Amino acid sequence: MAQPIASLGPCLFPSPLRHIGGTEAPFKTDGDRVLFEHRAAGHSEAPSEPVSFEEAGPRASIFFDPPRTTVGIVTCGGLCPGLNDIIRGIVNQCTYQYGITRILGFRYGYEGLVQPYGHTPVVLKPESVAQAHNFGGTMLGSSRGEQDIGAMVDTLEDMKVDILFVIGGDGTLRGAATIVKEIDRRGLKKSVVGIPKTIDNDIMYLDKSFGFETAFAEAVQAVKCAYIEATGAVNGVGLVKLMGRDSGFIACYAALAGSNVDFVLIPEVRFCLDGPRGLLEMLRYRLAKRGSAVIVVSEGAGQDLMDATGATDASGNQRYGDVGLFLKDRISTFFKDRRIETNVKYIDPSYIVRSVPANAQDNVYCSRLAQGAVHAAVAGKTGMLVGRWHGSFVNLPLDLVIHGRRKVDPRHELWHSVLESTGQPANFCEIVSARD
Amino acid sequence: MAQPIASLGPCLFPSPLRHIGGTEAPFKTDGDRVLFEHRAAGHSEAPSEPVSFEEAGPRASIFFDPPRTTVGIVTCGGLCPGLNDIIRGIVNQCTYQYGITRILGFRYGYEGLVQPYGHTPVVLKPESVAQAHNFGGTMLGSSRGEQDIGAMVDTLEDMKVDILFVIGGDGTLRGAATIVKEIDRRGLKKSVVGIPKTIDNDIMYLDKSFGFETAFAEAVQAVKCAYIEATGAVNGVGLVKLMGRDSGFIACYAALAGSNVDFVLIPEVRFCLDGPRGLLEMLRYRLAKRGSAVIVVSEGAGQDLMDATGATDASGNQRYGDVGLFLKDRISTFFKDRRIETNVKYIDPSYIVRSVPANAQDNVYCSRLAQGAVHAAVAGKTGMLVGRWHGSFVNLPLDLVIHGRRKVDPRHELWHSVLESTGQPANFCEIVSARD
Amino acid sequence: MAQPIASLGPCLFPSPLRHIGGTEAPFKTDGDRVLFEHRAAGHSEAPSEPVSFEEAGPRASIFFDPPRTTVGIVTCGGLCPGLNDIIRGIVNQCTYQYGITRILGFRYGYEGLVQPYGHTPVVLKPESVAQAHNFGGTMLGSSRGEQDIGAMVDTLEDMKVDILFVIGGDGTLRGAATIVKEIDRRGLKKSVVGIPKTIDNDIMYLDKSFGFETAFAEAVQAVKCAYIEATGAVNGVGLVKLMGRDSGFIACYAALAGSNVDFVLIPEVRFCLDGPRGLLEMLRYRLAKRGSAVIVVSEGAGQDLMDATGATDASGNQRYGDVGLFLKDRISTFFKDRRIETNVKYIDPSYIVRSVPANAQDNVYCSRLAQGAVHAAVAGKTGMLVGRWHGSFVNLPLDLVIHGRRKVDPRHELWHSVLESTGQPANFCEIVSARD
Amino acid sequence: MAQPIASLGPCLFPSPLRHIGGTEAPFKTDGDRVLFEHRAAGHSEAPSEPVSFEEAGPRASIFFDPPRTTVGIVTCGGLCPGLNDIIRGIVNQCTYQYGITRILGFRYGYEGLVQPYGHTPVVLKPESVAQAHNFGGTMLGSSRGEQDIGAMVDTLEDMKVDILFVIGGDGTLRGAATIVKEIDRRGLKKSVVGIPKTIDNDIMYLDKSFGFETAFAEAVQAVKCAYIEATGAVNGVGLVKLMGRDSGFIACYAALAGSNVDFVLIPEVRFCLDGPRGLLEMLRYRLAKRGSAVIVVSEGAGQDLMDATGATDASGNQRYGDVGLFLKDRISTFFKDRRIETNVKYIDPSYIVRSVPANAQDNVYCSRLAQGAVHAAVAGKTGMLVGRWHGSFVNLPLDLVIHGRRKVDPRHELWHSVLESTGQPANFCEIVSARD
Repeated sequence: MAQPIASLGPCLFPSPLRHIGGTEAPFKTDGDRVLFEHRAAGHSEAPSEPVSFEEAGPRASIFFDPPRTTVGIVTCGGLCPGLNDIIRGIVNQCTYQYGITRILGFRYGYEGLVQPYGHTPVVLKPESVAQAHNFGGTMLGSSRGEQDIGAMVDTLEDMKVDILFVIGGDGTLRGAATIVKEIDRRGLKKSVVGIPKTIDNDIMYLDKSFGFETAFAEAVQAVKCAYIEATGAVNGVGLVKLMGRDSGFIACYAALAGSNVDFVLIPEVRFCLDGPRGLLEMLRYRLAKRGSAVIVVSEGAGQDLMDATGATDASGNQRYGDVGLFLKDRISTFFKDRRIETNVKYIDPSYIVRSVPANAQDNVYCSRLAQGAVHAAVAGKTGMLVGRWHGSFVNLPLDLVIHGRRKVDPRHELWHSVLESTGQPANFCEIVSARD
Repeated sequence: MAQPIASLGPCLFPSPLRHIGGTEAPFKTDGDRVLFEHRAAGHSEAPSEPVSFEEAGPRASIFFDPPRTTVGIVTCGGLCPGLNDIIRGIVNQCTYQYGITRILGFRYGYEGLVQPYGHTPVVLKPESVAQAHNFGGTMLGSSRGEQDIGAMVDTLEDMKVDILFVIGGDGTLRGAATIVKEIDRRGLKKSVVGIPKTIDNDIMYLDKSFGFETAFAEAVQAVKCAYIEATGAVNGVGLVKLMGRDSGFIACYAALAGSNVDFVLIPEVRFCLDGPRGLLEMLRYRLAKRGSAVIVVSEGAGQDLMDATGATDASGNQRYGDVGLFLKDRISTFFKDRRIETNVKYIDPSYIVRSVPANAQDNVYCSRLAQGAVHAAVAGKTGMLVGRWHGSFVNLPLDLVIHGRRKVDPRHELWHSVLESTGQPANFCEIVSARD
Repeated sequence: MAQPIASLGPCLFPSPLRHIGGTEAPFKTDGDRVLFEHRAAGHSEAPSEPVSFEEAGPRASIFFDPPRTTVGIVTCGGLCPGLNDIIRGIVNQCTYQYGITRILGFRYGYEGLVQPYGHTPVVLKPESVAQAHNFGGTMLGSSRGEQDIGAMVDTLEDMKVDILFVIGGDGTLRGAATIVKEIDRRGLKKSVVGIPKTIDNDIMYLDKSFGFETAFAEAVQAVKCAYIEATGAVNGVGLVKLMGRDSGFIACYAALAGSNVDFVLIPEVRFCLDGPRGLLEMLRYRLAKRGSAVIVVSEGAGQDLMDATGATDASGNQRYGDVGLFLKDRISTFFKDRRIETNVKYIDPSYIVRSVPANAQDNVYCSRLAQGAVHAAVAGKTGMLVGRWHGSFVNLPLDLVIHGRRKVDPRHELWHSVLESTGQPANFCEIVSARD
Repeated sequence: MAQPIASLGPCLFPSPLRHIGGTEAPFKTDGDRVLFEHRAAGHSEAPSEPVSFEEAGPRASIFFDPPRTTVGIVTCGGLCPGLNDIIRGIVNQCTYQYGITRILGFRYGYEGLVQPYGHTPVVLKPESVAQAHNFGGTMLGSSRGEQDIGAMVDTLEDMKVDILFVIGGDGTLRGAATIVKEIDRRGLKKSVVGIPKTIDNDIMYLDKSFGFETAFAEAVQAVKCAYIEATGAVNGVGLVKLMGRDSGFIACYAALAGSNVDFVLIPEVRFCLDGPRGLLEMLRYRLAKRGSAVIVVSEGAGQDLMDATGATDASGNQRYGDVGLFLKDRISTFFKDRRIETNVKYIDPSYIVRSVPANAQDNVYCSRLAQGAVHAAVAGKTGMLVGRWHGSFVNLPLDLVIHGRRKVDPRHELWHSVLESTGQPANFCEIVSARD
């Protein structure tokens, strides 16, 4: 089943890439597809029409006439390594490859698209972004939260923006989908293309999200420090809280890289604290055996435990309790009650992890995502985002992606690699199966 | 068409992984396959039996009885980031997951497998490899070149080695294939499993080789220095030679990451120096426009030019001329002849690039390759290697892989991304098509 | 006035350094001095006998006979970069330069010197410390707090330890001074030599303490992240709490290096929050002008403010209130009350800053401190520590150093450089002079 | 004996620093001195007037009227970490502390001060240098060599430059001294203040030169790679050539930091290759014992050997032979002649070492040097440079400094620390004493 991408109309302009260097660009057609499923059981029948995604890349003909096209860029939500790389990549690609010269950077996320905040957009040129990739954060600034859809489309009309690149997470992309609908309702010819941002790496149908490799590499540094702290004290426990509200990818990868982690706790796998097979007894056992232990916990893990103990906010399911502080308290109490000396060192490196510059891997990945986003937008595609699936860059419908999150599957290899690497039990209590 | 893996015989022992943490391991069967082709043209027919690879992973039953099994590890050829990670991963996986306790590390490559050199193997335990991943190089030492196959198999017999893990490049893996044949000829039941090593990332049927991400990230540092040197002098030219005898992947990725590169020269794309569209005139033009330029060249690029000029060795096609020094000379002469001041700074960071410790990405990748190699070997698979294809770990027949090299395809996206990023012409002379 | 170092007695053994490489070692005598004061007012009279310190370095004759000498090493208190370098340096220097072969590493600080804890000392050899400097923390483990002096000297007697190297901070060195007294009371011939450790760089009569350069360099990374976070949000405020209970050196240096810091708050300079010249109004002004701000605060700063507000512990002057959280609350409330959107991002990188490996500067510095400590100890010096004063390594009496802390002088250049760099007012309220 | 600094005349303007933050700046007078000698033999007499340097720092009154003052900055010679920090520091200090708003950056060294090259100076503002310290090299560009003194002073007159900051090495500072003389000859009131740059750390009367700490830390990375290469091969020899034409400081410090170095060869200490105590035999012995060895050689070491063998240029004493390649050849030949397998890996990291951004230590050091230079220049001091002596910033007469180089003294502690750390013999042949 092909996943179609919405289009603004027929492409009447020949692509300027035809002439680059006197060679033919590797143009793609919408018929170039990447299969969703690349595994096959031995003797199964191939489905009559397998699910596939449109391959990203330049089109021979494009929808927008570059000299008359205005591009807008906006970055929303929390910081993530690579934002500046994406901005820079879009500006360079629009300018050098397509000859688009009017590029506006909206300030502070969706706030920059509505009037009352008074954030004036900045004009972006290759010179203004030349060194941007050497810095973390976003040169445009960011903000959280929704803004009035109509007002945002008004701004796009007022400023004659033809193409809007939206870089942001879940909520941002849902906003982008609504903007697309409003543009459509008004009968406008404006393309909206997303580049999905989530440091948690939890976007559906994507190999990985940009910034993830940088983030977990930085997280590894914190885990190494936790290990050093743990081994430097009597019964030292290094406790690191990492990003991951619903998905424990950063925690898993950080554990696999550092390889000195004793326990990984992620949102996808429930765990108990108490009882003979609970985390606390397991930790006691590990300390007795090794003299120290390192625990990596995703911020979204163990939320049910905190509700049960009443230790935290309970202000609806939006805000999470601080599982790091919670565990620190519970571990300290547990050993104090048993008169066992322990030294718990708690590290929460979140702001450091998310604000570093993108590393070389993400530099390349962001450059190529930006190139793909521009190729799609100038071809009149809209309501979509670019991503990478099994190593190939693809165009995905916004609607497909925003209806779910990718998670660590406790039955698959990644989690099993973590179990093999840490030696932790597959579950920390009898009742775990109740959830799964 | 399935690519079958040779097997030593039926698996009679239940895997010890059955009992890990009270949960079922994600066992694979040989029928779990990963498709070679994951792209599809819109309306094409599916082939009757698509090419597929065997998925890597643990098997429910295994061939070797762990308490009676001896494992050997050998690392061959040039250094590459991640060698110690692989060694460490194999030792940990054998010990902790399978209960194999006799693990020998052969010293200095294949030399360690034959008598005259007198390199005594070291006994490897988890404690002896605990911190190995924090260091570059190989703790076992390495060497280049072939050794007598019969003598090596004699050693395996003498030392009762049941499983040999061979970490090395092309030549090493060809040697491993010959060892497999000799083992087979003698009717022995010994598994030989390879983990392909090539910093050039030029192994067929593999997403990437281990160490590549670390290597190109390190190469980026050298490119950044070349940029700083170039911009710091009148008509500064920063020239960086990177690894890549037959394939320009490191050069391409380093250019995409740094993004301040003006020209990328790779073995796969022929170029001219002279003439109105040759590199030298293009460089003159770029200097006039920007005041400085950065050139990244793979060591295997431009070899035809050096033959033509007689500037270098010509000792057969084995040994390559130093294209870096060659270009440095030619560029300096070109501008001196025209009385234009230039400052060419030539950087050859090869030993630094290849000897750094693996970064976090490669830490994880190597851990998982090692896990996969051990899973395959204990299940009695042989004459194969582990790799990753489109994000999934697979078992590949040795014979399939050693008959070719992966290359940068000048007609595909990667090279086009490089052209878009550098703005260099697709070719540097009229006659380029003659080769392609 | 010379600061004399206590001695165990006459040096009867010729130094083995006499023979190193067939050249004369640069032996020092106790008459080689380093002046305390190296500034001079133009026409002032030189004092009759200026204060001076004994120069560190090898002596031509030594007190202990190396083959019969046992050395002990103990590390106490919080982690600090360079601990492993010191341990390694002592082991290498004792072994290779002096031929001392029995070296014991006591585990977990002073706990390792008393019986009830049951920590067995480890035997240290050059091989066991060969790679130690590549890791943060201490390979011996550490602990805080005092132990029974008599019991510790009993252990030294039982284990026939002739020389004890004590690496630790204030409290640890006071303990060392008491151990010296007890050794003296018992009429024993044991040397106790300290190497002062304080990440705060607040040791009297020392240019700098080991680990300080590494620590502030690491702190700079956190400050850069705070800057990125601050500039990435509307009215973003990056707030970083750094070590420094009584002295603000790390905060000052981190601010000077990063140079994007708007306010530095240190224990030595009192500040007000409220009022027209208080920090909060100044911050409002800065945000209005620049759109973001970065604040670096030492953990010991503003303690009087927290007492006043009752916001924190008040459990005696030992435990400090968390000035970071306090400021975060007060800033957020201040702007919320005025309906001004702000985004305060609070970073506390303490555990990361203190647990990283020593950088190259500290590698060298620690090596040389260790060499100096061994030179002094084998010469029978005791009750002293090694340090560096105006670039020269010196032996200082323990008693001299433990009676005070070095502080940032608000009237001197360092603080003025900070003021010049941040542009912050010299004080944040009228009443500041009351304290100074 | 006081070392006087030349002055343009009486200071009639009150320093604007008087008013910073409502507090008194720590103004210095010319009578504030730092003693040259801070060591004292026990009972010696104090000299009647000890040698001392003028302390750097702000003066209460200044010579130039800031609103009417024009500042110029020029960077000359090879790259060195920290150049951008110095430029940035000067611009910030002039602007924010003194209110000087016209600051010109001359391009490409002294070339930018003479007409024929046509390099237009850039106007420097705090915004244009805000991120400069994050990058290596010099944002102004640099060049080597002399230019016509009269023409340069003409330019200063034409552009009404009152203060010229010259950042460069030996030759550059000699040029600056000549500019001072020409200014004086013409009766002009222009200040010329130098900031000495030498990555070799060989400036007289200075604790260290800026960039040195960054450089040797980067050099350590190369030495670590050499160690990894050496230990990864049979009889591996890692050979690293580091900067140091006349002084071996970088080599010494890199060896002390890495501590896995077996031989350090510096210009100050002659060595033999052949004979029973020559380097080659010593290397053979070390390889037999350890299986690998690391050699660090300064570029200026062993020049006499190359002349003797005729292996290299001999084009006058200006240009040095490449001692790295020379040693590589000689070592390889030596072992090949003896049929001993060796693997020599030669690393020359010069361009990488010198082009990296300044580290945190140098960030701070450069900021403070820049502050000191501006303080001196606005006070009308000229023909001088700023430096640090025994931890205090001082003003030094240009003439004093340019007449010599600081060297590693083979009889002092630094070299002895190196010998202790490497275990190498103090000399490699009998005849060494002939030179010393």
